[in-house]
Amino acid sequence: MRFDRPFEGYVVGERHRSRGRTITEADIVQFAGVSGDFYPLHIDREYAKQTQFGERIAHGMLTLSAATGLWVMEQGCVLAFYGIDALRFVRPVKIGDTIYVESEVKQLTERSDTAGLVTVHQQILNQHGETVVDALVHMLVAREGKK
Amino acid sequence: MRFDRPFEGYVVGERHRSRGRTITEADIVQFAGVSGDFYPLHIDREYAKQTQFGERIAHGMLTLSAATGLWVMEQGCVLAFYGIDALRFVRPVKIGDTIYVESEVKQLTERSDTAGLVTVHQQILNQHGETVVDALVHMLVAREGKK
Amino acid sequence: MRFDRPFEGYVVGERHRSRGRTITEADIVQFAGVSGDFYPLHIDREYAKQTQFGERIAHGMLTLSAATGLWVMEQGCVLAFYGIDALRFVRPVKIGDTIYVESEVKQLTERSDTAGLVTVHQQILNQHGETVVDALVHMLVAREGKK
Amino acid sequence: MRFDRPFEGYVVGERHRSRGRTITEADIVQFAGVSGDFYPLHIDREYAKQTQFGERIAHGMLTLSAATGLWVMEQGCVLAFYGIDALRFVRPVKIGDTIYVESEVKQLTERSDTAGLVTVHQQILNQHGETVVDALVHMLVAREGKK
Amino acid sequence: MRFDRPFEGYVVGERHRSRGRTITEADIVQFAGVSGDFYPLHIDREYAKQTQFGERIAHGMLTLSAATGLWVMEQGCVLAFYGIDALRFVRPVKIGDTIYVESEVKQLTERSDTAGLVTVHQQILNQHGETVVDALVHMLVAREGKK
Amino acid sequence: MRFDRPFEGYVVGERHRSRGRTITEADIVQFAGVSGDFYPLHIDREYAKQTQFGERIAHGMLTLSAATGLWVMEQGCVLAFYGIDALRFVRPVKIGDTIYVESEVKQLTERSDTAGLVTVHQQILNQHGETVVDALVHMLVAREGKK
Repeated sequence: MRFDRPFEGYVVGERHRSRGRTITEADIVQFAGVSGDFYPLHIDREYAKQTQFGERIAHGMLTLSAATGLWVMEQGCVLAFYGIDALRFVRPVKIGDTIYVESEVKQLTERSDTAGLVTVHQQILNQHGETVVDALVHMLVAREGKK
Repeated sequence: MRFDRPFEGYVVGERHRSRGRTITEADIVQFAGVSGDFYPLHIDREYAKQTQFGERIAHGMLTLSAATGLWVMEQGCVLAFYGIDALRFVRPVKIGDTIYVESEVKQLTERSDTAGLVTVHQQILNQHGETVVDALVHMLVAREGKK
Repeated sequence: MRFDRPFEGYVVGERHRSRGRTITEADIVQFAGVSGDFYPLHIDREYAKQTQFGERIAHGMLTLSAATGLWVMEQGCVLAFYGIDALRFVRPVKIGDTIYVESEVKQLTERSDTAGLVTVHQQILNQHGETVVDALVHMLVAREGKK
Repeated sequence: MRFDRPFEGYVVGERHRSRGRTITEADIVQFAGVSGDFYPLHIDREYAKQTQFGERIAHGMLTLSAATGLWVMEQGCVLAFYGIDALRFVRPVKIGDTIYVESEVKQLTERSDTAGLVTVHQQILNQHGETVVDALVHMLVAREGKK
Repeated sequence: MRFDRPFEGYVVGERHRSRGRTITEADIVQFAGVSGDFYPLHIDREYAKQTQFGERIAHGMLTLSAATGLWVMEQGCVLAFYGIDALRFVRPVKIGDTIYVESEVKQLTERSDTAGLVTVHQQILNQHGETVVDALVHMLVAREGKK
Repeated sequence: MRFDRPFEGYVVGERHRSRGRTITEADIVQFAGVSGDFYPLHIDREYAKQTQFGERIAHGMLTLSAATGLWVMEQGCVLAFYGIDALRFVRPVKIGDTIYVESEVKQLTERSDTAGLVTVHQQILNQHGETVVDALVHMLVAREGKK
């Protein structure tokens, strides 16, 4: 999603597709280190072979975090990350998969004189066009002349 | 939460408190690098001074990711991260704050012969006992004798 | 600089100021690790105290690298980093300093049917408005309809 | 280059070849994180396939930074990185390429009672002996008895 | 080893096998950065080809460090890392190898009213069951009711 | 220690003092990530306050790893890290402490036509001259004309 305008600039139904990012083995190793999540599904090749996935997969939270890095956020436009609803990790992200974020504005809610809530249906897709994560994301956005 | 048993071992209402982790400036810098989210609220001290927070704060996704690292997950017990509902970033996490995860099992749902869904109300607290993140987390857990 | 257009869209004399980034101790530690440059001026507090700077300073190459991260580069617009001229490290960047990039297009040179060279005078400033790095940067940019 | 002597110890025309370093996918991922430069040519495999390079390449600034890590710098000998001239990124560095630095002292300039400028023609080569970066590098070096 | 009890709870002869972790190229790159050890055996593919190992290998200290991350250490149980004896790096760890820690308690020594020393014979194995590191590790552990 | 010669070039009793490195909070955070050792003594400020140390301390293995990065190892001179004996973590390393390595060659052992063992008494000191780690380190070094 592009958070590059004051609240008044968004329209329900507008859509955006982000650029891509390849999730590498190095990303998984780094994410284990940052999060502290060393669950063997992510970092033990021998263990992962025996699971339903057959190989190491990215942490769900890595995919979700990398998606926020694919958003465009202009300074001053975003006040805070408000929340997430109905998030589902639909498919695994494997080493070498490339992810994209497809977004559609679903709801716009005034919160105060200075802030509004932009609710976005966010799908994270892989290079085959398959959805890997599906969620509703709520961002607190500055109102016109208030950023 | 402790995901250290097969599905049959959980009871609605059981609670767990994790150990702590201090969120440092280095964590924020690393997380910006891993996620690609360089929004100035997290990495620009001059900008952050002028926001409602008055200083740089941790990415919401960093706090959430660090919480997964505070879970105890025994090998074979967790099959997959299923999803998240009703997540709200309630308070900022500042540099030097220490976070803890308090969990309560809310629902247990059989999904198949091999897996069940454990739904946990997860609160991430800071060192003052204040909730910083509140969410419902769903984990797919192996059934007895099936891990 | 904003590299967000085909070559034909640039005008000599146009200027841009980037958002900021605070250079932290963690950035210096990480940069030593990525570059392999562990010169004690950057990572030994006792040694740095005795130099003309009186404290640890950022690697010049860290400042320069962080500046490229402050550029806006739209996918497909930039073909390659062509080169740098007349780069001078004018002042030290200390832990906690915030840097900004001020750019002015100085020259536009057609290179082929598909690419042009955009030459930018780039000044990296600190939070006091002092220049810390001064350079001419050349970027190979796609021509209209060729990206 | 070896910066392991006071200024008086250098001779115009002296040459040095550094040891090597392989640039890995992990280096590119880490460098994107440290610099903040997530341009898709470096981190999106699908995008990179469609460029003139056909695959992801290292950031020019990563190659340049890694070269500084291949210099030998004895404590006290180097006072500051002074500047760079005539830098050209001549060829791409691909994942798995190994780089070396070949240096030749071109000029020696007294700057003060305590410092001199050592100007070095630096070529960064790959494992095939091809130049990937070519530049003039200026280092401020301590004079005899002044470090 | 599981350090999850007060000193009184250990028995000479008890054994434990940890879960696994795959040592990746990214781990080696990161460890070079954290330790500052850029010896070419670890980070220069061309050089490593000509050694007795024929390829890059993990730093011995990386393997040893990753082994401590495979220990289970309950908060309050471990007071301090006391020391290591008779450590031998027996076989190389190559990129993609998975390591496990096998431990056996060899000796229990009271040190004070509050602490005891647990001496563990630790073998780090690879996925073929071969020992790669062999050592005696001494941990200072809290006594009953003293943690 | 300087491992910059063939085996024949070492003399029992020769000594060396390395340059320094300050151990920062960022180093501890990174090392937790690389090793997977998130024991709260290192990463939880609230917990650490209540221990005998009163604050977070560096992982023993971080100090030991950083010491290897302070060695000088010329390409081809070191064949392998052979082992460690009598290692004791004598004092804690706190955030902001600077470490140095003092080495003395204790024993020289021919191992084959191509390799010899150099045994070094290594003391890691802090900026107050106090020993923090004491160990005997064995390195396998190339013999003359055999590197």
